[in-house]
Order: sequence, then C-alpha cells, then structure tokens
Amino acid sequence: MAPNLDSYFKTVDDNADHFIERLRQAVAIPSISAEEERRPDVVKMGMWLKEQLESLGAHMEARDLGKQPVGRYPAKKDESKRTILVYGHYDVQPANLSDGWNTEPFKLSIDDKGRMYGRGSTDDKGPVLGWVNVIEAHQKAGVDFPVNLLMCFEGMEEYGSEGLDDFIIAECKPGKFFADADAVCISDNYWLGTEKPCLTYGLRGCSYYSIEISGPGQDLHSGVFGGTAQEPMTDLVRVMGTLVDTNGRIQIPGIYELVAPLTKEEQGLYENIAFTMDNLYESLGSKTGIFDKKEETLMGRWRYPSLSIHGVEGAFSAPGAKTVIPAKVVGKFSIRTVPDMEPHEVDQLVYSYVNEQFKKLGSKNKLNCYLQHSGKWWVASPKHWNFTAAAKAVEKVWKVQPDLTREGGSIPVTLTFEQATGKNVLLLPMGSSTDAAHSINEKLDRNNYIAGTRLLGAYLHYVAEEPMKE
Amino acid sequence: MAPNLDSYFKTVDDNADHFIERLRQAVAIPSISAEEERRPDVVKMGMWLKEQLESLGAHMEARDLGKQPVGRYPAKKDESKRTILVYGHYDVQPANLSDGWNTEPFKLSIDDKGRMYGRGSTDDKGPVLGWVNVIEAHQKAGVDFPVNLLMCFEGMEEYGSEGLDDFIIAECKPGKFFADADAVCISDNYWLGTEKPCLTYGLRGCSYYSIEISGPGQDLHSGVFGGTAQEPMTDLVRVMGTLVDTNGRIQIPGIYELVAPLTKEEQGLYENIAFTMDNLYESLGSKTGIFDKKEETLMGRWRYPSLSIHGVEGAFSAPGAKTVIPAKVVGKFSIRTVPDMEPHEVDQLVYSYVNEQFKKLGSKNKLNCYLQHSGKWWVASPKHWNFTAAAKAVEKVWKVQPDLTREGGSIPVTLTFEQATGKNVLLLPMGSSTDAAHSINEKLDRNNYIAGTRLLGAYLHYVAEEPMKE
Repeated sequence: MAPNLDSYFKTVDDNADHFIERLRQAVAIPSISAEEERRPDVVKMGMWLKEQLESLGAHMEARDLGKQPVGRYPAKKDESKRTILVYGHYDVQPANLSDGWNTEPFKLSIDDKGRMYGRGSTDDKGPVLGWVNVIEAHQKAGVDFPVNLLMCFEGMEEYGSEGLDDFIIAECKPGKFFADADAVCISDNYWLGTEKPCLTYGLRGCSYYSIEISGPGQDLHSGVFGGTAQEPMTDLVRVMGTLVDTNGRIQIPGIYELVAPLTKEEQGLYENIAFTMDNLYESLGSKTGIFDKKEETLMGRWRYPSLSIHGVEGAFSAPGAKTVIPAKVVGKFSIRTVPDMEPHEVDQLVYSYVNEQFKKLGSKNKLNCYLQHSGKWWVASPKHWNFTAAAKAVEKVWKVQPDLTREGGSIPVTLTFEQATGKNVLLLPMGSSTDAAHSINEKLDRNNYIAGTRLLGAYLHYVAEEPMKE
Repeated sequence: MAPNLDSYFKTVDDNADHFIERLRQAVAIPSISAEEERRPDVVKMGMWLKEQLESLGAHMEARDLGKQPVGRYPAKKDESKRTILVYGHYDVQPANLSDGWNTEPFKLSIDDKGRMYGRGSTDDKGPVLGWVNVIEAHQKAGVDFPVNLLMCFEGMEEYGSEGLDDFIIAECKPGKFFADADAVCISDNYWLGTEKPCLTYGLRGCSYYSIEISGPGQDLHSGVFGGTAQEPMTDLVRVMGTLVDTNGRIQIPGIYELVAPLTKEEQGLYENIAFTMDNLYESLGSKTGIFDKKEETLMGRWRYPSLSIHGVEGAFSAPGAKTVIPAKVVGKFSIRTVPDMEPHEVDQLVYSYVNEQFKKLGSKNKLNCYLQHSGKWWVASPKHWNFTAAAKAVEKVWKVQPDLTREGGSIPVTLTFEQATGKNVLLLPMGSSTDAAHSINEKLDRNNYIAGTRLLGAYLHYVAEEPMKE
C-alpha cells in the first residue's frame, strides 16, 4: 500500500519559494570550516539551523564539537514509529569570486533555467535544509509525521571531521541520543548523471601511503655532485614506476587476490545503469579513459581497486629550472580499496613490494614506506527495507526506478554510522553530477531541491510502511 | 726570470686592514639581484665599485645592463704590455638572519680564526675587490703596473645574467672596449679543498629538459576517477624511471658514445689531486656516494656526464595527503655534459629515447619533451701561458704547485668569453671549498683574501713575462 502523499507534495510545491528563501539564508552564511577566521560562521550556521528546527518544534541540543546541533523530531519519541537517523553537514568548501565564480559565491543566484548557484547549495546545505522543509511541509499540510527523526548535522566535514567518529560512537550507545535508530539515511552525494536519481549502497576505501627516500645531509647542487652521489629522486621514480601500469593495473602481487570475485548476478547490474562513455569523457575533459565500455568503466570505478600517484614532496616543484639534487623526497600514492580487501593486509603487501623494489636498486640511500591514513570500503545491502522504501519514494516522486550505484570515493562517516548503529545505511543523493561540489559555480537545480524535499518526505512514509525484512 | 714582487707583497700585507675595510663596505650593500626591491642596491654597488676604481685612476664606463661598470687600468693603454680581461660579479644571493645565519649577513663579521662572514664575501665581492686592491697596492708600492687590465664587473650574475652574452660579444668586437684582450681571467669559483690552491681549466655543460605529460581537462579526484582514467603521473614516473640507474649510469643509448675517451695521460692526473673520499662524504653529509675511489669520483664529477631528476611540477608537493590525480605534470631533469658531447646531439638522443619509452606504455595521454636551457661544457688548455703564469704565481704566493682541476658545474660566462675573445680563459679561485657560497654563513678566510690579492697581482706580473706559447 503506497502512502497517500498528495497533500504533502502539494504543500512542498506551494512552499517552494519559501524553501528557496531558506536556502538563500543558509548560503549567505560563509561557514567555511577549513578557514579558521570563518569558524564563527560555522558556529553561526549551526545555531541558525538549530533555531530553524526549534521553531518547527524539534528538540535540539548543541554538542561539543564546535556546538554542532543534534535534534529529534517530534520532540517526544512516538514508540509506535520507526526511528530514522539522518546526517548532513552545513559547513562548506572555501570560495572566492576571484577563483572564477560567475556570481557571488555566498549569495544564492538563480538563473532562468532554475540553476541555483552558491557555495554549499548542493554540498550540503540544500540536502540538510531538505529535512527542515520536510518537517515544515508536514506541519503545514497537516500530515502526521511518519517516523521519529534523529538528526546529526555536522559543521566540520570539509575539514576532516575530527572527533566525529568518537562522537557518533558515543551517541549511539544505549540510552544516548542516537541509540534508537532503526536505519540511517545520509544525503551527501550525487546522482551518477543528470537525469536519473540513484540510491548508493557502496563506497571504496582509501589507504594513503608515503615512500620516503633520503641520503645526503642536505640538498645538493647537481653540477657539483651529479655523477658522484646516489640520488634519492632517482631511486624514488624507479620505485614508483613499478606500482601501477598505464591501464591502472596494480603491479603489487596479491592485491587482486583480496578482491571479492565478480558474480554473474553483479555482472548483470552494470548494463542497466544510466551512464555512458560520453558521460565519462565529459567529466574527464578528455578521452583518456582506460576502458572503452561503460560496464568495465563502472566496475573500474566502483568494485575494483585503483592506485594513483599523487606527487612528490621535497623535490623541485615550481615552474622553471632548478638544478637541485633533493636530499629527501617523499612520494605519495593511494590505493582505493574494495570488498574484501582488509586494509592491514593491503599495507603488508605494499610495504613488502616497495621494499623489495628498492632492494633491487642496490642503493645506499634509506627507504621508509608508511601509511598516512586509511579508511575502509563500505557496502550495504540494497535489498534492506531502508533501500526498498527509498526506491519506492523515487518511483513516486520521479516516476522512474532509481539506479543502484556505488561510488569510487569515500564518505568515511557512512562506515562509522553502520558500525556504531549496527543498522543499514542508505545514501540518498539530492543533487546531480553537474553540481560542481568543491568547484567554482557550485549549484543545485531548483527541481532537485524541491522534488528532493518531496523525496525525503516520501522516503520517510515508505520507511514507515516497509515490512521488516533483512 | 721571476718578477721581484717583494715590494708589492709587503704593501698588500701592510694594507690588509684597509682592504678588509673595503670588503666590509661592499658586504654592507645588499646587492641581491634576484630581489626586485634590492635592484637599487645592485646599482649602488656597481657605482660604488666604479668610484673605487676611478679614485685609483682607472677609466670606467657604465654599461646598459643595469649600469654595470666596465673599466680599464691604466686609463690609457700601454701598447707595450699584454692586456688581461678580468671578470667578477658584485651582486649576491639573497640572505636573511632568520635563514639561520650566526651573524648579520650584510655586516662583515670576523672571528678569531680570521673567518670573515658576510653575504658576498667569497661570492664574489672578495675576488672583485681583489683586483681593486691589486691596483691600489701597486700604486702605494710604487711598482709599475705590469699589464693593461680590462675589467668586466657584472651585477646580475645571481639572476641569470640576462643579456650578458650579447653584451660581451659586442664589446669584444674590433674597436670595442674588450677588443684587445690577450687572455681572460675569471675569479668566481673555489678551491677543491681548503688547503691547496687550484687552477681550473674545465667545466661541464648542462642541458635541462622537461617531460610534460597531460591528459584530463582538469585535476581529478582519485576516488571518482581512479581506475577509469589513464593518469599522467603514472606515465611520468614510468618514463623518468628509465632515465638513469642508482649508480648514475645514464640509460639513454648513445650518450656515452659521445664522450671523449679517457687517455692514459689524463688517467694519471687524478691520483695527485688533493682530494679524499672523506672530503666527499663531508660535503655530502652522508656516505651515499656512487664510487669508493677518489679517482672515479673526480672523473664522475668532472669528465663524465651525469643525469639528475630534479622534481615534478603540477603534482601534489605539499606535506600531508591529497587525493588528486594531476591533469598535467612536468618532470624536470638535466644532463651535465662533457667533451665531446654536442648539445643538439644530446637533445636528439634524449627526445628519441623519452618518446620511445612513452610509446611503450601505450598511453592515450600526450607527451611533450623539450629543452628548457642548455649551456655547453668548456675545457681550456692548461699549458697556455695564461695558466703557466698563474701556476708560477701560486707557487710564489702559496709555496705549492696548484692542482689543475675541472668543475662539475657550469659558469656559462666562461665559454662566452672564450668564444667572444678567441683567447685562453683561466679560472683562478680565491676562496676555498668550505666558504658556503649561496648558503648561510658564507665566509672568506682573511688569508685567502689577502694572499689572494697577492696572487692576483703576482699573476699579472708572470703573465707579463711568460713566453708566447700555444
């Protein structure tokens, strides 16, 4: 039985301008967490959000991490209803008009195609306000709120979310604020394309390594010492050159043995995903892709590991010509990990291979290979009621079955929520692939915002009705 | 017949404090050519030098390149005497106390061992003032000046000497200021060690290359694109990894075929040079040398080519971790060249090899390998009267036969003078290997400065007497 959402939907549509005004106010607060002088704006943004929700009757509390708001709606739990924990962040990436924005980044500017430009519009103020709008539209429509909503809104996501994991784990313990969550919904990613909504059930992990090679006591002049000293940079490029080939095949033995085999069922999934090679070429800005087929490309992004070499610290990196022999260089690379790669097993394979390659050089220099950070991959079951409810909501709002997607990147908080709650986590994106999060001219389409608000509300109604399976 | 220099030497010694005061005044002018706001100080330094020489009766002119002084002493040419063209520079490297200097860099500070600390003391104000002192001491001693001295003093050496080559070539044409030079003497390098003077007759050349590899339209996120895009940085490290091995052996076919073979006579020269492996280890600050023997080490520095990889432009180079896939990366490396390597032949071997290595990768990215700059090696005949005169002067002043050395680095002006004058060029260093030119705590030993002033004067006397051979 589909919940009757007509009244709710009509109210959302009737309040579209009001909701856009809310987004305008939010965008106008430059809550850039990475800039220390903007931290007061991050706190201001959190307090503004808290007040918005309090004025709608939610119970809000401010938590220690920069006074981040957590909330509950209705304020008093209805024991007969499911409890859904939602997450979003209200801090944003840095932005300046001079970076190349066409409009003031902290002033919401809507063009005639309904594209709403502004820093944070899609990442992640729009989705966060979606939840506020959902509450308000229910009240205005006089429709009973279908679940208990727990809200975790963060103000330091763009600066590494320091302390957030411990906070979430603590608040998920029995008797604590998030203890009663039956499922989790995170709205902080994007559609795969621009036309078709998706539900996301997997993310790759990331293990980031440094290879440090040192020898001389200080940087040397290549005229004086070239040909008499073993050079760390020579050793480094030789070692890094053995890590991966041009087609992305990782050369470290044992890596692919850790990867879960491709099943026939999974193989069939990729064909139907709304994605074309032209989508890839457009986002690459070139045709320098590894694969010619969309299925292989999606698998390369989602379900196979990859290795990228990011750069070198300590060597000459400016324009021009400098004849230095750097005394110590640090090569940086990372491996995107997938099921069933255990990070510590990957570490061991990496260390062993890198040391072996270095040993082959017969160098007197010193090598130290170490992990900078690591975050594990995450895959949820898309057959869980949390996902089937979301799929029904997409069909209701967008008249189309959502793609079930994974992502190549990491959203570490996803795994934290899964581990802390022990419940299913759903990624339910609002924006589309062209929204330019983290870039200049970030935008959210009006339709994605308003239909997205419909979607979040509809999701809660279907969640309330889904049978308890898985 | 050795010239009787006693009166000149005594006058030099008697005027030592006066000469040091002169160096103190020079060091106090922060003539840092690389810092635009210091350019007036570079001009001021040039004018100060001009006035010093004019007060000694030299004929001075200021030339266009930042009003650089050229001079002649005696003001009127004595047709019966040889004409020696000397070069030095009066601009200096940047220096700040906060870089780690123990004393104010622009205040000459003399410790109890006679080490005179100050930016420019040894590179190259001390040697330039040496020539001024030589003139003054001759006047005070009442000794006839033995040659016609032409002076070319530069104020932009530490900033690339832009325009200098054209200037020298023009001034060496018939009828121009430097036209009558019979030989050239440059005092802008250092002893190989600290105890024994040397005469330098060879320099390696330098050809500096960039390998640019590009693919995507903009930098990419390794989470989203890792495993689907061919990465320029992967290609670059693989190509750079094929250039040279850990023991400095250049892997580019044909390079060593261009190198002049080692003759028996030359082979015997290295054994007697005042240099030990401990000298190398001390200057390296480590024991990561390629060779265990001093002869091989000296040949590796002086007479064989070397290849150094300097760094990568466009990749991540800061501390920390950034998961970027750089869209365009530029690897930088240089080859130190030696006789008989023709730079354009080296270029062709480099381009052909780099392109071949890249082709092997089967990459869709684009490669562009190009020369940034190139300067040719230089080797003079140490049997020329210019050298034998200098050797006699060293024996007279230092009571020891000088080492005949080459250098691994480049002093491009050397080759320019040789080509423009068609005459023999001698490098006659004043400072020692521990003077820390370009570094913090640059110094010139009092004894090197005063005995160096003796040496420059004695050199002119022997030059006046040497038979015309070679």
